[in-house]
Amino acid sequence: MTKEQKTALVTPELPRGLIDRQAADIAATEAMMAKIRAVYELYGFEAVETPFIEYTEALGKFLPDQDRPNEGVFSFKDDDERWLSLRYDLTAPLARYVAENYERLPKPYRSYRAGWVFRNEKPGPGRYRQFMQFDADTVGASSPAADAEICMMAADCLEALGIKRGDYVIKVNNRKVLDGVLEAIGLGGEENAGRRLVVLRAIDKLDRLGVAGVRALLGPGRKDDSGDFTKGAGLSSDQATQVLNRIAFGVRSDVGGRGGTMVIGNATSQGDLPLGHDLGIQGISELAEIERLVRVSGYGDDRIRIDPSVVRGLEYYTGPVFEAELTFETPGEDGKPIRFGSVGGGGRYDGLVARFRGEKVPATGFSIGVSRLLAALRAIKSPIVGAALKAGPVVVVALDRKDHMADYQRLVSELRNAGIAAELYLGEGGMNAQLKYADRRGSLCAVIQGSNERDAPSGRQVVIRDLVLGAELAKASKDRADYLELRQRAQQTVPEAELVARVRDVLDRHRG
Amino acid sequence: MTKEQKTALVTPELPRGLIDRQAADIAATEAMMAKIRAVYELYGFEAVETPFIEYTEALGKFLPDQDRPNEGVFSFKDDDERWLSLRYDLTAPLARYVAENYERLPKPYRSYRAGWVFRNEKPGPGRYRQFMQFDADTVGASSPAADAEICMMAADCLEALGIKRGDYVIKVNNRKVLDGVLEAIGLGGEENAGRRLVVLRAIDKLDRLGVAGVRALLGPGRKDDSGDFTKGAGLSSDQATQVLNRIAFGVRSDVGGRGGTMVIGNATSQGDLPLGHDLGIQGISELAEIERLVRVSGYGDDRIRIDPSVVRGLEYYTGPVFEAELTFETPGEDGKPIRFGSVGGGGRYDGLVARFRGEKVPATGFSIGVSRLLAALRAIKSPIVGAALKAGPVVVVALDRKDHMADYQRLVSELRNAGIAAELYLGEGGMNAQLKYADRRGSLCAVIQGSNERDAPSGRQVVIRDLVLGAELAKASKDRADYLELRQRAQQTVPEAELVARVRDVLDRHRG
Repeated sequence: MTKEQKTALVTPELPRGLIDRQAADIAATEAMMAKIRAVYELYGFEAVETPFIEYTEALGKFLPDQDRPNEGVFSFKDDDERWLSLRYDLTAPLARYVAENYERLPKPYRSYRAGWVFRNEKPGPGRYRQFMQFDADTVGASSPAADAEICMMAADCLEALGIKRGDYVIKVNNRKVLDGVLEAIGLGGEENAGRRLVVLRAIDKLDRLGVAGVRALLGPGRKDDSGDFTKGAGLSSDQATQVLNRIAFGVRSDVGGRGGTMVIGNATSQGDLPLGHDLGIQGISELAEIERLVRVSGYGDDRIRIDPSVVRGLEYYTGPVFEAELTFETPGEDGKPIRFGSVGGGGRYDGLVARFRGEKVPATGFSIGVSRLLAALRAIKSPIVGAALKAGPVVVVALDRKDHMADYQRLVSELRNAGIAAELYLGEGGMNAQLKYADRRGSLCAVIQGSNERDAPSGRQVVIRDLVLGAELAKASKDRADYLELRQRAQQTVPEAELVARVRDVLDRHRG
Repeated sequence: MTKEQKTALVTPELPRGLIDRQAADIAATEAMMAKIRAVYELYGFEAVETPFIEYTEALGKFLPDQDRPNEGVFSFKDDDERWLSLRYDLTAPLARYVAENYERLPKPYRSYRAGWVFRNEKPGPGRYRQFMQFDADTVGASSPAADAEICMMAADCLEALGIKRGDYVIKVNNRKVLDGVLEAIGLGGEENAGRRLVVLRAIDKLDRLGVAGVRALLGPGRKDDSGDFTKGAGLSSDQATQVLNRIAFGVRSDVGGRGGTMVIGNATSQGDLPLGHDLGIQGISELAEIERLVRVSGYGDDRIRIDPSVVRGLEYYTGPVFEAELTFETPGEDGKPIRFGSVGGGGRYDGLVARFRGEKVPATGFSIGVSRLLAALRAIKSPIVGAALKAGPVVVVALDRKDHMADYQRLVSELRNAGIAAELYLGEGGMNAQLKYADRRGSLCAVIQGSNERDAPSGRQVVIRDLVLGAELAKASKDRADYLELRQRAQQTVPEAELVARVRDVLDRHRG
């Protein structure tokens, strides 16, 4: 580096789509995660974590005809020229982990993990290139009981976070129902994987685009309001109708819905079988079993509900799929109601471990989108995230820094030894700047020792200042009946020996 | 992707230098970090986190003559062709953060953060390419009181983790003392930055290589036992002597050491001033102030000690430097004693924020190496990390999976509703496999309901099996006096209504 380059200033900025996290955010996230973790552990899931970097190949999205693999993924070459990538979710690394440790692990293997994942995509509002997921997965259990358990756990998580019954729903569907239809209209097989994915993503947008929008995406494509054209799956009008009829609407009546009873028998007797019915019947029967298990555990259809419009946009699901949706609305900043919608989802992915082991290994899991859920908890003013941030530390004002730093330091140490968060002001400011600093830190109390207090005839004293009452006092009228009392409580001079006790009084006063 | 590639199996493996973390490790780390966090907060530090990815330029190690920047760092290009890197420590991103948010932040700004950092280096035993640091920094305070506070906080952290007084020491030195000498022997200025770094790293190895080894590294270089040659700083024999005399040994007596009194006055009167003495005197006077402040707060030289051999291998330090060292030894696996040595370190880096802002911004901080500290806590059998891992969940055995999954599911739900971690066995195994599974999970209790229990004339019953006593029973002689009592406690048949109460009995029995 030349001297010139060294002296040129660097702009302090983050690459787009990345953000710093402040104390309030971190504390709220921690509090939220602790609640989720407790539910996961109640269900017998144990923690496991994989590193952020994996072989690109292990993540399973290798595109060999590109100079840089993995559009959408951050990738770089290792010394031995093998491609590495930052993980883009927590499921692909789990599949690698299970395959690598297969013999050693208890099976079924229930595990959970929270972690940051990375997408090399165009960021947008609320859409980042680094974000956190909190996953739970059961590997080695093909039973619908494993899927049912995941759904109940998701519901329990939301309630543990203070989201009221009726304000959320776990929607359940089964890819097999859809896959049966797709097979029947000639979209089966490896060679149609890409088109199937387009179909899935189209159906996934039913809520937002409505039937006409989805139909366009199933067919030639769709031009959105801005004029951008999205290429469709290229289904014929007849094929698109079959998909829409049988999946997005038809199945709803087949599998019970609101009433809560599974009616596969009825569907059969009505001759109302879905297309591709072997796979479809299997899917419906799994849904029936899931519904039965959650109902017997006391989860009504206000909490867990079969919903044929749920598809999930990922290709790797092979059976039941889940979506955790918040159904309440809150007024946004502009007054318009905001609906948070999906805050998590998952499903069964029996083929993911097979990439490594050849044989299929059944697996099902659920992933919570941490920031979106946090935003929702904030919107409903959840005490869990609200109470997470503590008040600032007690600030010991440093007035005569040349000669008395050791005195101030001693006061701070005394407070800390008593378990009270405290700090010595370490800047260059005067009295006012220091009190302003304490204010900025959200401190409740300041401790002051000037020469008057130090040299008091009755022995060393300290001033204990209640910053909350102090602020009140500053705004109060002197005519107020309790003005003098307020003033006295807002600032007291006490013997140094009472430092800890009096500071504690102030803190207790404002900690409810 | 062709069909052929899809069916070819992928080897499930991690890139070298990366590891997965198991539940015990995660729980122990969490418990340890919670203790550290509490100490940091007691000192008034608040949490802040930056993302994993930064502009390479912002991290400050850009090497423009390389095709790929930052040897030692994982880097990749963004869409707009700018280089991005994974952070290699938490200090460089903090400098960027402070510079970017300078006006908004309270000053001095005390903050802490834990996070994974990445090094694209050759991994070795205990040396990974992803590892965790836990940092605390004060930005905007030039006072030695800020450095003193960091040292006390480091000592408090170690004691909070159960490391006894006398088993650790926080060593303190000042780069200015060394920089003064280097300037005096003609190694000042930007053009000698590289050589100064070689000198620093040589001195940093004093413990390991002894005086002769360091002297070789200060001079032409050194061949190690394996025959590998490390190029030295190229100092003349005279220059090397001056460095060694004045720094590694000479200053020790100047600034007090064991006795705990600073004797700058004495040093002056003895004409024993370090070379380059303007900077050197300033450094010694700062050390004296740090020592005074920590002593008045009750930290003796068994906890915080001036030690002239501490240099820290990083170039950016500009004043006091700290090293947290564990001084006890534990027997290693081969019986040979292991000394953990440094588990953290830091120092003052007044120039790091200046890269962004032009003006110097004083800053000092400390970084804990999380895994090394965890290994040390394990070695001393610290209850903090030992107690972190909980027992496995209660396992409800699933015998008749065709017809009675709903019954089992109901039992599990009942336990969970009572706040007891429980799970339904979801695999395909029989009774023995299920009990083996419970054993593998570290479960204390299993619940069994076969047809006998289900159809009992007196109403539904369940078998509560104490897995710990069960294991004891399996090994016990039948002649044992309390054998029958043991057998009864190890497995009881009780009415279903007593499920929760009896399971709780078993859990309480083994939770001390």
